[in-house]
Amino acid sequence: MNKIVVQKYGGTSIGDVEKLKSIAKKVSDKKEAGFFPIVVVSAMGKSTDELVRMSEEVTFNKKSPDLREKDTLLSTGELVSSTLLAISIKSLDKKVISLSGSQAGITTDDIHGSARISDINTSRILQEIKEDKIIIIAGFQGVNIDGDITTLGRGGSDTTAVALAAALNADVCEIYTDVEGIYTTDPRIVSNAKKLDKINYEDMLEMAVLGAKMHPRSIELASIYDVPVYVAGTFSKETGTLITKGVNMEKTKTVTGIAIDKNVSKITIKKIKNLPGTAASILKPLSDNSISIDVIVQNTPSDGFIDFSFSLSQEDLEKAYEILNNNNTLDFEEVVKGEDFAKVSLVGTGMQNAPGYATEMFNALGEKNISIDMITTSEIRITCLINQNDLDIAVNSLHETFELDK
Amino acid sequence: MNKIVVQKYGGTSIGDVEKLKSIAKKVSDKKEAGFFPIVVVSAMGKSTDELVRMSEEVTFNKKSPDLREKDTLLSTGELVSSTLLAISIKSLDKKVISLSGSQAGITTDDIHGSARISDINTSRILQEIKEDKIIIIAGFQGVNIDGDITTLGRGGSDTTAVALAAALNADVCEIYTDVEGIYTTDPRIVSNAKKLDKINYEDMLEMAVLGAKMHPRSIELASIYDVPVYVAGTFSKETGTLITKGVNMEKTKTVTGIAIDKNVSKITIKKIKNLPGTAASILKPLSDNSISIDVIVQNTPSDGFIDFSFSLSQEDLEKAYEILNNNNTLDFEEVVKGEDFAKVSLVGTGMQNAPGYATEMFNALGEKNISIDMITTSEIRITCLINQNDLDIAVNSLHETFELDK
Repeated sequence: MNKIVVQKYGGTSIGDVEKLKSIAKKVSDKKEAGFFPIVVVSAMGKSTDELVRMSEEVTFNKKSPDLREKDTLLSTGELVSSTLLAISIKSLDKKVISLSGSQAGITTDDIHGSARISDINTSRILQEIKEDKIIIIAGFQGVNIDGDITTLGRGGSDTTAVALAAALNADVCEIYTDVEGIYTTDPRIVSNAKKLDKINYEDMLEMAVLGAKMHPRSIELASIYDVPVYVAGTFSKETGTLITKGVNMEKTKTVTGIAIDKNVSKITIKKIKNLPGTAASILKPLSDNSISIDVIVQNTPSDGFIDFSFSLSQEDLEKAYEILNNNNTLDFEEVVKGEDFAKVSLVGTGMQNAPGYATEMFNALGEKNISIDMITTSEIRITCLINQNDLDIAVNSLHETFELDK
Repeated sequence: MNKIVVQKYGGTSIGDVEKLKSIAKKVSDKKEAGFFPIVVVSAMGKSTDELVRMSEEVTFNKKSPDLREKDTLLSTGELVSSTLLAISIKSLDKKVISLSGSQAGITTDDIHGSARISDINTSRILQEIKEDKIIIIAGFQGVNIDGDITTLGRGGSDTTAVALAAALNADVCEIYTDVEGIYTTDPRIVSNAKKLDKINYEDMLEMAVLGAKMHPRSIELASIYDVPVYVAGTFSKETGTLITKGVNMEKTKTVTGIAIDKNVSKITIKKIKNLPGTAASILKPLSDNSISIDVIVQNTPSDGFIDFSFSLSQEDLEKAYEILNNNNTLDFEEVVKGEDFAKVSLVGTGMQNAPGYATEMFNALGEKNISIDMITTSEIRITCLINQNDLDIAVNSLHETFELDK
């Protein structure tokens, strides 16, 4: 027990002065209780969105903002929140210091906008701990070997927190957010959704990929370094959810939760010639334009032609549609776009050696007259693309079928 | 001629997106014309004020914000403007890079809030020039030997610009602002105030101390390193004012200008015992609370008692008044405060060997029935504290008396 505890507070938790002052007290109390809090903060409220908007407004000819400059720009959001939190804690007569990602020793590769942490030199942090200080660290950012500031991309502050917890061998990484933990499914849709006391890394990873609160990257990192992650509500007295290794998990529970994602659209390329490399020719121009695609379905060739479908997020639909239609290297009949889909996924490590879950899932949806548009599975997950209007009924039905409220 | 030109743009010059884009074009054009622009920027518009406000709101028990944290906080304002300007210039297909104070090699002492530049390591800047890049530098900030960010205090960005011009041996340091140059006096008060083509460092220093647009510190630095400073309107086609050595100045002109400062109040301590160290006992608690005092007048002792008066800025009046009244180490009759004063000063290097200016000034004011409350003089300046209501008449009268419109 080295008593180091890493805490991360998200943007809504420090969205205004009063909330920030509450966090200051909470952190201060943790120190009083004998711990060494290392606190990672995101930018306040919507400030990152505001900076992104400005970076786009200042360019000529609608060019994309230079990524190196944009990274330094965005990094200021976390500098503001970390210094303000330090100022607030200091006024409670506590020893405290804020560190930028660079000062905290976080070095990354030089992929601006989505850098990966390559190393954490903890010497400065350990020095500050030795001086008995609470340490506030600007999340989401690091520095490359040239001394240029980089940002870690989506979910960056979660990643900062988990990486620090790993590097400092902290007992736990606490992620405070606007939900009270990880639920069996979205409580806004299923009224008796149950908060999980524990979930293992694998299940959480699938839940995260599929729209739960944390970024998959941070879960992956936690899993590799075996960092217990505790997710809880910032201003709640309720117990949160502990994300940890699977060994102690209840063996009988096979389905852990139902993940959902509403923001889904679909593109189908009809009657495209099935040659070696066709899939790559379709997808390369999309990834070149930073469009992530998700579920891919390709039917069996007929007369040497196939239909090729994939799902993608709603925001990317128009851009992807345009790129595909302007792709002269492809020989196809037409591109069809579809909106207002949702993904519903059954997740559970326990499913991997137990057959019949897919059947039971399809059956439950069929009984409610819900048609399935696409299906994809992994060892521990079954995902169906369905009509968005059917989502609430589907999730409630599945939650009941697999007795997740028990 | 190394073609390096340092330009500084103030906060109002880049107060919104459109203005910032105009600056981007202006800088880009300068590069096209064969120069290497090194551009120093202040924070946009009122953003520094906003950060200061937030730093005060997050403290408990109205404590002052920690200065080390506040410096990092405030430094983000210039990071935002410098990266946005770089993004804008980049979108014009120019090579460009923004550098923080630290990246630009600016090291300072560790007096947070009002640090002094100790050294500029220009290697990174010279490397970027070699790569043919326009360089945008975040003004107002540096880094101390511990790697902590410092800020230079009031007028900091002007100081950054002049220091860089000196370190890079630039031909000129151009300061762009919302006025078109240095005038014989405030054109809003004296309609025929004349813009000066040239002014020497000494005169400009006095004018600056007394409320003109530039900070005295930057002028002092320019004078020491002999950096010609050109002050002009950001979006104006008019010629500005060149601040330079006095050698080429017109010898016949003895009064250069009239400086004014409206933001003046006064405190008088009545009947205080005149012991060795009395003045220090009065002033030390004030400077400990960051209150700057200005003109000091102490009358001749009578029965071992004196009246001790000084002027100070309006904002500090109440705080200073309170501190003095609570100072138990002082033995005095009462503290009297006075508001709504103004300072009017005759400035000119030429005055130093020519007598009679003071008499002529007092005479001019007397003819207009203006009473003088306090007087202070230097070799090249005569300052009178007068009633604020009398200011316009005083300045106009002096401008005419000393034929500054000629």
